[in-house]
Amino acid sequence: MESRVTEPTLLLNENICKSNIKRMAQKAREKGLLFKPHMKTHQSAEIARWFQEEKVKAITVSSVKMARYFANHGWNDITIAFPANIRQASEIDNLASRISLTLLASNNQTIDLLENNLNHEVNIYIELDTGGNRSGLKIEEVEKIRSLIKSLQKTNKLHWQGFYSHPGHSYKARSKDEIMEIHQSVLHQIRQLKNNLKTSDKEYEICIGDTPCCSISENFEDVDAISPGNFVFYDLMQAQIGSCQIKDIAVAMVCPVVDKYPTRNEVVIYGGAIHFSKEFLEDPHIHYGRAATKMENQWQLLDDETHLKSLSQEHGIVHCSPDNLNNYKVGDTITILPVHSCLTANLMGTYMPTEGKKITQF
Amino acid sequence: MESRVTEPTLLLNENICKSNIKRMAQKAREKGLLFKPHMKTHQSAEIARWFQEEKVKAITVSSVKMARYFANHGWNDITIAFPANIRQASEIDNLASRISLTLLASNNQTIDLLENNLNHEVNIYIELDTGGNRSGLKIEEVEKIRSLIKSLQKTNKLHWQGFYSHPGHSYKARSKDEIMEIHQSVLHQIRQLKNNLKTSDKEYEICIGDTPCCSISENFEDVDAISPGNFVFYDLMQAQIGSCQIKDIAVAMVCPVVDKYPTRNEVVIYGGAIHFSKEFLEDPHIHYGRAATKMENQWQLLDDETHLKSLSQEHGIVHCSPDNLNNYKVGDTITILPVHSCLTANLMGTYMPTEGKKITQF
Repeated sequence: MESRVTEPTLLLNENICKSNIKRMAQKAREKGLLFKPHMKTHQSAEIARWFQEEKVKAITVSSVKMARYFANHGWNDITIAFPANIRQASEIDNLASRISLTLLASNNQTIDLLENNLNHEVNIYIELDTGGNRSGLKIEEVEKIRSLIKSLQKTNKLHWQGFYSHPGHSYKARSKDEIMEIHQSVLHQIRQLKNNLKTSDKEYEICIGDTPCCSISENFEDVDAISPGNFVFYDLMQAQIGSCQIKDIAVAMVCPVVDKYPTRNEVVIYGGAIHFSKEFLEDPHIHYGRAATKMENQWQLLDDETHLKSLSQEHGIVHCSPDNLNNYKVGDTITILPVHSCLTANLMGTYMPTEGKKITQF
Repeated sequence: MESRVTEPTLLLNENICKSNIKRMAQKAREKGLLFKPHMKTHQSAEIARWFQEEKVKAITVSSVKMARYFANHGWNDITIAFPANIRQASEIDNLASRISLTLLASNNQTIDLLENNLNHEVNIYIELDTGGNRSGLKIEEVEKIRSLIKSLQKTNKLHWQGFYSHPGHSYKARSKDEIMEIHQSVLHQIRQLKNNLKTSDKEYEICIGDTPCCSISENFEDVDAISPGNFVFYDLMQAQIGSCQIKDIAVAMVCPVVDKYPTRNEVVIYGGAIHFSKEFLEDPHIHYGRAATKMENQWQLLDDETHLKSLSQEHGIVHCSPDNLNNYKVGDTITILPVHSCLTANLMGTYMPTEGKKITQF
């Protein structure tokens, strides 16, 4: 495969990717959860089809544009897990005329503007902020939550579907224990919410959607649906957090070696910020990716000295241990596991499967 | 213009952009320098045409793919300012059959592989590392430089054109004085190189290409050509370094406000890492962009408390001073000047001119 690489290429190991999908789908089935996988990581109709093999019917996306792409590829139950952007009311309305569309909202202005600007019906999840401090209402804002539910019940076109939360603070965890602590806190908040609402919890759905908690936890009490996304590929950040092992990472960048500097223990690769993104980790060096090698249908990291040390627009500098440096010469390729597969996949736009032909995104 | 914005949009102020181009072209003419502007920042044939109005004939790009795009748009003298990637020999050969193509090399393997794999002639700049520690030979590696020149002179298809250096360490400067210090050091190294070579310097060309030095310096002794790129738009990083003023920044992101959290002094915008890139600055807060307002055909920063504090894939969180917070409501837009215009423009793919219709990239 690497022999065909002429420029930075995102390899996709189909077997690993399909196992990741199977494992999460199976967990959802076993726990009696609706599985509404997030498509923002792979952004590909072809990869989305692999979810159909697991009987997935409803999906989650992060933009109206992405919803339109998947609707055009036959998906007809889509949640846009992003605060509803009323400036896109006409595109939203068009989508709502074709599919079952669910939006997120956590303020009355959005509810009013949607009700006044849409002609077609949509479902609404009230977004909850369970600790990520990004968007959504806090569980303790009981009055606001009640008022939003009341507002929704008064509308003609908006159906209150339940609550959605992306506990994004789990990405800042640095161990399985820390992830579990966050997950327990999320479950505790959901329990509080249910008690506060004092309405039958059969009337609404609770959906949570982060890869770390969905990967690690076995307890989904009070949760009805999950919508993780990153687990489809995983990456070094997830491995560092403890959500996955290196063997679960399904994508790797393959980049040409274009220069070699033995006195610096460095090679220069064709592969920069416009391919990898500037997301970095520190373990122990600050790096934008780690060099790996292929072993029995999975990637294995080289020593931690061999890391993608810096990026400019199209250049990458890989610092190598002396042993690894000897293995690379100008004209070779080098395989790098990405720090954050969502951003790398978004930049790359296509995948080269380890077997088969190119897979495209929207 | 902002009234038409429904999703994250990269506004381009044509007047500022054309002044930036005019100013740099004029400086090159006054100093008797060849002007080979780098296209990697804007990546657009339409913006490239604005350089033709300044009589620019030769351009610089950062990849074979970008060279092909501009060749298809009528440019026939192109330098690929990136270590020649011999895995793309056949695309390079195809380009070399159509245009005057210049490549960079700083090792003998690349020279040999190019000579053996190309059918058409190309020009070669030997790349010099004048302090960026990215790629190129150090000035003191006199024997290696001489040996490369000899190797080039023995080939049939490669013509030695001279030396190219991107003093990328100027991006780490934090004042005009620091930029000048770096520029003086580059000039000093070039003088040393010329003395070491003891060959008529009429035989070769010296090209340097970084926006900070090209923007600030008036002394280009011993330099024959310049190839800066970022100056076409500039950005907050260049303003921080001292290469430009805020009024010279030609692009700004306009993003819908989708949520507002008064207790946190924050608004959530539609605009994330896949729009801005994760390049950040610290002045005084770590930020991914600064909020601005339009004043008399240019942007002006709001107070430094009002900054793009964090990014996830499609969400941005703007922390606001209390005064500015009052100015934003759900459904409004907010204007953010980018930290690094090259990466933002690469992610965005199209520009919305402050007047006129969309401008596309390759």
